[in-house]
Amino acid sequence: MSETDDLLFHVNGDLVPVDEATVSVRDRGFKYGDAAFETLRAYGGDVFGWAAHADRLANTCDLLKIDHGLGREDLHERIRETLEANELDDAYVRLSISRGVQPEKLDPQPAVDPTVVIIVKPLPRGGVGGEAVWDGPATLETVKTRRVPDNAVPAAAKTHNYLNGILARLELRGSDADEALLLDSEGYAAEGATSNVFAVDGDGLVTPALSGPVLPGVTRATVIDIAAKEGIPVRETRVLPKVLREAEEVFCTNSTWEVRPVDSVDGATVGGGPVTQLLVQSYRERVEKRFY
Amino acid sequence: MSETDDLLFHVNGDLVPVDEATVSVRDRGFKYGDAAFETLRAYGGDVFGWAAHADRLANTCDLLKIDHGLGREDLHERIRETLEANELDDAYVRLSISRGVQPEKLDPQPAVDPTVVIIVKPLPRGGVGGEAVWDGPATLETVKTRRVPDNAVPAAAKTHNYLNGILARLELRGSDADEALLLDSEGYAAEGATSNVFAVDGDGLVTPALSGPVLPGVTRATVIDIAAKEGIPVRETRVLPKVLREAEEVFCTNSTWEVRPVDSVDGATVGGGPVTQLLVQSYRERVEKRFY
Repeated sequence: MSETDDLLFHVNGDLVPVDEATVSVRDRGFKYGDAAFETLRAYGGDVFGWAAHADRLANTCDLLKIDHGLGREDLHERIRETLEANELDDAYVRLSISRGVQPEKLDPQPAVDPTVVIIVKPLPRGGVGGEAVWDGPATLETVKTRRVPDNAVPAAAKTHNYLNGILARLELRGSDADEALLLDSEGYAAEGATSNVFAVDGDGLVTPALSGPVLPGVTRATVIDIAAKEGIPVRETRVLPKVLREAEEVFCTNSTWEVRPVDSVDGATVGGGPVTQLLVQSYRERVEKRFY
Repeated sequence: MSETDDLLFHVNGDLVPVDEATVSVRDRGFKYGDAAFETLRAYGGDVFGWAAHADRLANTCDLLKIDHGLGREDLHERIRETLEANELDDAYVRLSISRGVQPEKLDPQPAVDPTVVIIVKPLPRGGVGGEAVWDGPATLETVKTRRVPDNAVPAAAKTHNYLNGILARLELRGSDADEALLLDSEGYAAEGATSNVFAVDGDGLVTPALSGPVLPGVTRATVIDIAAKEGIPVRETRVLPKVLREAEEVFCTNSTWEVRPVDSVDGATVGGGPVTQLLVQSYRERVEKRFY
């Protein structure tokens, strides 16, 4: 029995014990991965960056034409209810909206009765006084699996179709690397399986532009905003993997990792450094100011 | 209440009423579409082409490294049990194997406790004396959504990541077309959202080769086999969409449609013809010989 078993999840408006938290096998989220989701991190009883997550979720649902009819305040309230019911201040939160059950054919019906699921689990406190969720820096390795191009499934949509990232991570089995670097179809760095990537060189930060198949990460945007305020130039552009291998510093970002230093890329030692440390610290201060 | 509500589905070894047929919200099939599936058609109480479907399912699970440990006879027996419990001779059958519930991270664990789901619904009898499941020929339209390349997610894997086809079908909303033609990243025809496509010209059959991002359809292979026996040459090659628009005949194949004539491609009338008719008839005779 793991700690998960005692939790309550939020499923279609109800708080239910984990073992009763289910969806129909006919749910399109299960059958086709036909669903939008957000991964969020809660600090002190509320999620960080809700407005940005809610915007991205709305955009995903627009791209998939999932007209769920739910207000963002309603969704936010469900998240808070779930945290409260579990007496969780600091947590991992996953909010999913699927297209629900429809007749057994691929074509989606315009009228949607969505399935709304909120999963939580405890995550140690972040912020200045808190701990990182990662044990150490990430080890990045370029994989053969290429990022799905935007003209096939837009990267701006964060969906339950996550096999691309899973296949990338499967390539790392048996290696020391713990994050896969996916290139786009032209060989430029796109992103990690669950993170955005940044390099630091003499001119500031460099990160793959959103014009490529790159998830518009909420933490990515926060880091760019912090850099602007700190006077660190940021170039969003095409980034060859060798730029990462030869960078002064490299780091990854996502909502649970926050800013995570990368110690090596394809075996080339890069390590963190003063810029990464400044961003780690500034991010934690934003969390602190907002929540503690 | 639809006819579906009275059915029994097979979930992890048990036959359960539809409204109790569920999977955990933590199931990776729901969270990530991390699952393999097959769509099959049953005639006279058993599924057509089981060996070919079982082979493809095994290949999908190999590609996803879902080491489920289930024998193919076990799976076949579960399908037969489901048909029998529902007193269904002629049916649509969907068999799914997901990676099941694992800890809340993207990396799959090697040890898999799979989720096995069989969904059925009645489908009118096929075969020589039976009826086609489609009301009329298909209308094909080339969509902007491109087929996911093999280097991102291999098309040989039939998985719960089906948003590529869903986005393609969504483009057809409001149009007369009922099947989307997806091109590969280089602009060659790959497949329909749920079907393989064939053209007929003066030299026989032409169909996109499996070296492109093309699902190795079981019906596709059966049609190629029938053509060989009938002395009709088949070229598996790169096919430009204009080859389909200018063909003498075009048809689509999948397990439920069998061989379905196409009346037009991008507004250009093609219609069926003698070769399509011969294949429709020969396919039905195979079904008939095997099952009735």
